[in-house]
Amino acid sequence: MNQSLNKLLATFNDALDHSIEKSQLHTQLEESMIYSLKAGGKRVRPLLLLATLDMLQPKSEDKGLNTAIALEMIHTYSLIHDDLPAMDDDNLRRGKPTNHKVYGEWLAILAGDALLTKAFEYISNDTTLSAETRIQLVSALSLASGHQGMVGGQTLDMQSESKAVDLSTLEQIHMHKTGALIRFAIEAATIIAHVDNDIQKQLITFANHLGIIFQIKDDLLDLFGTTEALGKQTGSDDMNDKSTYVTLLGREKAESILAQHVEEAEQILSTLSQTYNTENLDYLLKLFYQRQN
Amino acid sequence: MNQSLNKLLATFNDALDHSIEKSQLHTQLEESMIYSLKAGGKRVRPLLLLATLDMLQPKSEDKGLNTAIALEMIHTYSLIHDDLPAMDDDNLRRGKPTNHKVYGEWLAILAGDALLTKAFEYISNDTTLSAETRIQLVSALSLASGHQGMVGGQTLDMQSESKAVDLSTLEQIHMHKTGALIRFAIEAATIIAHVDNDIQKQLITFANHLGIIFQIKDDLLDLFGTTEALGKQTGSDDMNDKSTYVTLLGREKAESILAQHVEEAEQILSTLSQTYNTENLDYLLKLFYQRQN
Repeated sequence: MNQSLNKLLATFNDALDHSIEKSQLHTQLEESMIYSLKAGGKRVRPLLLLATLDMLQPKSEDKGLNTAIALEMIHTYSLIHDDLPAMDDDNLRRGKPTNHKVYGEWLAILAGDALLTKAFEYISNDTTLSAETRIQLVSALSLASGHQGMVGGQTLDMQSESKAVDLSTLEQIHMHKTGALIRFAIEAATIIAHVDNDIQKQLITFANHLGIIFQIKDDLLDLFGTTEALGKQTGSDDMNDKSTYVTLLGREKAESILAQHVEEAEQILSTLSQTYNTENLDYLLKLFYQRQN
Repeated sequence: MNQSLNKLLATFNDALDHSIEKSQLHTQLEESMIYSLKAGGKRVRPLLLLATLDMLQPKSEDKGLNTAIALEMIHTYSLIHDDLPAMDDDNLRRGKPTNHKVYGEWLAILAGDALLTKAFEYISNDTTLSAETRIQLVSALSLASGHQGMVGGQTLDMQSESKAVDLSTLEQIHMHKTGALIRFAIEAATIIAHVDNDIQKQLITFANHLGIIFQIKDDLLDLFGTTEALGKQTGSDDMNDKSTYVTLLGREKAESILAQHVEEAEQILSTLSQTYNTENLDYLLKLFYQRQN
């Protein structure tokens, strides 16, 4: 990563390290929350938020930091719950035992609930932002992550297991399950920077491409990546009988659709580069489609 | 109930009936959320909020309605997750099969997550309130229901199972697990009505008494109530080896502590009645300690 992104990442990780205060109740709840928060994610969502904000309004990363933390908390809670025995029943996540493998099932459920709740606490107490901006962020985040967003997508995904799904259903799943939070990352930056509607629209279209790119790449890596690089078992979609872009379209077609979305995303950045410095978003776009894990 | 409380309850139930829109994803998620929301709760938390607001600022129940719905959503999600096999493993709730018994475990987890998220969406989109008031409510609700509130209390409760706990731990459990949301019901009304600190302080002390009254009564009913009246199995605390006020102190002592908290709560209402019409809160207090289910 370049210096500017590295700096944003370091600032973020440092703030994340201090995001969960101890409680007076002396349980393992906070430890369990922190375990999953720190389990070495790539932080693509917070980086996307902070890099977009930095592009729109340089040197104002302080204003995005708490929302970026809230976003990572939502993402992390969704992984904890998705890994549960009643859901995907995964033992490994990012190369480490999943939360319920370490802390047991009931504490994993509660740690997820607490992280989800904490995300809204974080935004609501962010005194670097006006109440009006904070309430817009709470509204956008709850929509993106709730029954009409991420949780809805996860439900459709679970409901589609062991069933033949068509491409349009697959797109619905991913637009919601993974796309909604990626879109929120960029939408949040536009809310904080108060950009005009036209720029916001272009950036959200860019985010939609990124979401699809992320997912197709994920499906390709699941079938053709290595367990070592991924830190989780490859072929798990296959074992769970999940339809993916690759199983549905074949590798070649999946790669060609991926390339098409990359091209369209690059076009948007090229237009934006007339007004803004898009260097970091260019870099993150590459990271999305060239990543090996 | 008197006419005024009945009217508040009817208004609330009507709004609750329309609180979950359909999603375009055509899954059972919304049905599962609505199933538990409508499963015939006593609505004590929303009623407490609306009655307190009505006392502080008559005829402004519109301003409390969305927060009351959010509060009931949080309460309902916590019941769905508490009933799961990995937690209390309950088959019956309010006389009906629990959510996971009807929809399966994974959908129950997701319905809980979605209700929790929806609560914050509800408050953030409440246009009857200023952004400043909404953000105060989001902050207070997330604190009350998160790792330092309700979820923290549930964790301590689970961690204390099959262990001898002392009275102070038992009080910690209930102050958080059930007390925090009851306190929020009343705190929310004081936030919406913008009352001065002194009144707020008295009302929150009243809420703390209510929380303890609620729990001691719950423990008494669990051992001495009937399955029929409760709509769930009695003696379940006993079977789960849970310490309760009754097992710890004996029935007589538990009833005498209950009476003491009732007296102190009545005293606060008596003071408040010099300024406000406390009729509805008097009634709800009675409901808390005289209820048979």
